[in-house]
Amino acid sequence: MTNPSLLILAGDGIGPEVMTEVRKIIDWFGAKRDITFDVSEDLVGGAAYDVHGTPLHDDTMAKAQEVDAVLLGAVGGPQYDDLDFSVKPERGLLRLRKEMDLYSNLRPAQCFDALADFSSLKTDIVSGLDIMIVRELTSGVYFGEPRGIFEEGNERVGINTQRYTESEIERGARSAFELAMRRNKKLCSMEKANVMESGILWREVVTEVSKDYPEVELSHMYADNGAMQLVRAPKQFDVIYTDNLFGDILSDCAAMLTGSLGMLPSASLGAPMANGRPKAMYEPVHGSAPDIAGQGKANPTACILSFAMALRYSFDLGEEADRLEAAIEKVLADGVRTADLLQADGEVPVSTSEMGDAIVAAL
Amino acid sequence: MTNPSLLILAGDGIGPEVMTEVRKIIDWFGAKRDITFDVSEDLVGGAAYDVHGTPLHDDTMAKAQEVDAVLLGAVGGPQYDDLDFSVKPERGLLRLRKEMDLYSNLRPAQCFDALADFSSLKTDIVSGLDIMIVRELTSGVYFGEPRGIFEEGNERVGINTQRYTESEIERGARSAFELAMRRNKKLCSMEKANVMESGILWREVVTEVSKDYPEVELSHMYADNGAMQLVRAPKQFDVIYTDNLFGDILSDCAAMLTGSLGMLPSASLGAPMANGRPKAMYEPVHGSAPDIAGQGKANPTACILSFAMALRYSFDLGEEADRLEAAIEKVLADGVRTADLLQADGEVPVSTSEMGDAIVAAL
Ligand SMILES: CC(C)[C@H](C(=O)O)[C@@H](O)C(=O)O
Ligand SMILES: CC(C)[C@H](C(=O)O)[C@@H](O)C(=O)O
Repeated sequence: MTNPSLLILAGDGIGPEVMTEVRKIIDWFGAKRDITFDVSEDLVGGAAYDVHGTPLHDDTMAKAQEVDAVLLGAVGGPQYDDLDFSVKPERGLLRLRKEMDLYSNLRPAQCFDALADFSSLKTDIVSGLDIMIVRELTSGVYFGEPRGIFEEGNERVGINTQRYTESEIERGARSAFELAMRRNKKLCSMEKANVMESGILWREVVTEVSKDYPEVELSHMYADNGAMQLVRAPKQFDVIYTDNLFGDILSDCAAMLTGSLGMLPSASLGAPMANGRPKAMYEPVHGSAPDIAGQGKANPTACILSFAMALRYSFDLGEEADRLEAAIEKVLADGVRTADLLQADGEVPVSTSEMGDAIVAAL
Repeated sequence: MTNPSLLILAGDGIGPEVMTEVRKIIDWFGAKRDITFDVSEDLVGGAAYDVHGTPLHDDTMAKAQEVDAVLLGAVGGPQYDDLDFSVKPERGLLRLRKEMDLYSNLRPAQCFDALADFSSLKTDIVSGLDIMIVRELTSGVYFGEPRGIFEEGNERVGINTQRYTESEIERGARSAFELAMRRNKKLCSMEKANVMESGILWREVVTEVSKDYPEVELSHMYADNGAMQLVRAPKQFDVIYTDNLFGDILSDCAAMLTGSLGMLPSASLGAPMANGRPKAMYEPVHGSAPDIAGQGKANPTACILSFAMALRYSFDLGEEADRLEAAIEKVLADGVRTADLLQADGEVPVSTSEMGDAIVAAL
């Protein structure tokens, strides 16, 4: 049997430094648990642009298609702000999502017990929070045509197209219902069916799919109300299913509720490969954080938890994922804190590397 | 001189009952301040559909075009959920916005001192909060063509079009900069220029307009980060300028931060009329709240504060607006609370009508 394969795309900003800590975890699994991954590394985003003039080289794209899972750090930075739209760091990430056809983006918004105080929300509103947002990731206004900036009369007009087929809505919905079945059997679908026809179709298709999951309690909510309810009483939700653009905004809002963005992982899953496992890419929810890059201040936990999601969804190593997550809970309970998790004056933060070491030690 | 004219469209759900309280305020101004409005009333939303089979009759539309200001309650309710898209209650509201060309939607998110505890956010994060969101209201994905549900191959596809011309972006931006000049001279523009070309054009035009307002400090933020920052540290913002759809979601998120949705008004302003005042419609941010309609539980304050905005922006009665707002602050400070504002067990709420009376008494 060959080793499971993993492509690491560390990317920009704090991506490389948090990825260094993930390598420590991977090494630990090899040394102590005899679980060896075939790890390769490559460039994405601004880092790829600097070398190749494109935010994702075709060879990297081809490698991503072949491995069992991709682990991505982060893309983007102010030095790339003035690049042409077609070669911006983000295009590399979007190409990976589109060409690997990773239609189901799982974004847990989970409040860690040791960090409940850290939220800007009142502790009782968020303690114990555990939501899963399923965001459709390969369609909608991110990819719809026509798009661009056109001349019209004597001025310019900017156009993007929100576009969803029934099958696109359906496959994402199935993945959301499957997740709901393994969780608390509650699914809330969010759109703007009161204003957008694409939202009407969305609601119809989700309702149709729900017939195959009679145990799951389905509700529908307009996305603006969804944003309100997330702020007002987030614990009312279990699984939320929504489109690419609403998902972008609502999942970031939900992530911030927990107060610990440096802690949140994500998984982007596609259709099953020959081995039965889905095509997959894992990445932290936080961005490239150029303001703290290279200073050893970044929290590597979100990226390590993304690797834990890979263990669970791509490598069938759910128990090892539990072990890794438990190690992280322990480190937090012991009061180990990176700079983003400080609260009281006088607390001393650990560095990115010390956080990684603490997690390895807890394993 | 003729009296200023006001068209009241109470609409659905709690709309009529909160509007009854506004009438008390209007009567007070007539009796005590000798300021008389020519008030007419008409139907909108489901209420109009029930009578005319359309959520906005052409005669009502014509009246709205003629008056100095429209005051709208709320539209929508579950009994209209299965209506065809073209006659849904919301279409009446959207037609008013579009045909009156009310491109600048002002949504204050303000935390009332007496209610700071009421937010789901920690008190220090929101106390003193005072943001103004300017939402472009007549374009974008709400109105762009093509739109609809179409057959394609052997399935259906739902399509909406995000579409912004330079002049649409510009006129809204000017109104936002003007507001910023009268406030703290800080404007944050939000879009997804990293993903959408319409966002790139948005950023370019706003940057161009900013040259006419050198005193205003302009920043740009991706809308997903905007949602995060609103939750994390909302007081970093003064004026926010964003498009129709992002504005819908972000303004609801911001409104909920204050914890007192029943308190928040809005103004939708268009181009100046012959009298120099803008075309205008005022409405509370809260919806029709069908679950509590007809029970005397609704908080009329948001609608009364919307009337205060009308005094300020449409009738040049800024001092009277101040007076009305001060009366509301006083009523709150006195501990008068409708059901939505209760916190401790054992507190007894006042009814919609008692709240209106208390405000009149405070005047
Ligand atoms: C970096 C950007 C293109 C991306 C998105 O908009 O999807 C990010 O915000 C995310 O949510 O993963
Ligand atoms: C009722 C609905 C059409 C409307 C909108 O989406 O604009 C509402 O949510 C609002 O924000 O005023």
